[in-house]
Amino acid sequence: MILELADIHIQPGRQAEFDAAIHRGVTEIIARAEGFLGWSVHKGVEDPHRYVLQIRWRSLDDHVEGFRKSADFTRWRELVGPFFARPPHVEHFNLLGAADA
Amino acid sequence: MILELADIHIQPGRQAEFDAAIHRGVTEIIARAEGFLGWSVHKGVEDPHRYVLQIRWRSLDDHVEGFRKSADFTRWRELVGPFFARPPHVEHFNLLGAADA
Repeated sequence: MILELADIHIQPGRQAEFDAAIHRGVTEIIARAEGFLGWSVHKGVEDPHRYVLQIRWRSLDDHVEGFRKSADFTRWRELVGPFFARPPHVEHFNLLGAADA
Repeated sequence: MILELADIHIQPGRQAEFDAAIHRGVTEIIARAEGFLGWSVHKGVEDPHRYVLQIRWRSLDDHVEGFRKSADFTRWRELVGPFFARPPHVEHFNLLGAADA
């Protein structure tokens, strides 16, 4: 399992529109990609224009070689890209540990 | 529920020691804080010195007014602080949405 973490900054005043666009983009486009395992989106408290999108992939290739090179990636960016204040910063991570209280 | 996201960069070559220290710090110190709901730690693929610590708190105050002002916060920073390359960047987030595949 690989975690994709995308740090997103959107244009001022467009939160409500972006909330709907990112939810639709993840559930209708990214969720049908090969190797997609789950998602979360969080909105900043200190910075209301900052969003953190987290996607769990079966492997790094499912994201980088699969989804990113698919027509669905273009559809995804067409949906959410117009809200970005700058290109998102995306990195990948391996799980070290996790638990609920 | 509030998500604390801490972006951590550690000193080169100390990953194995830090893996053990952060696991111990979260499970033995942070986990006993009032309002602690769960945790995860991920390690960078592109940057092996980057770690993302995520803590779910019942409220912002449980983290900022409770844990951060407790003696346990000092214990936590004594355990993990010596590995940091620079002070971690910490922000808080509200959940917009999440689901498993």
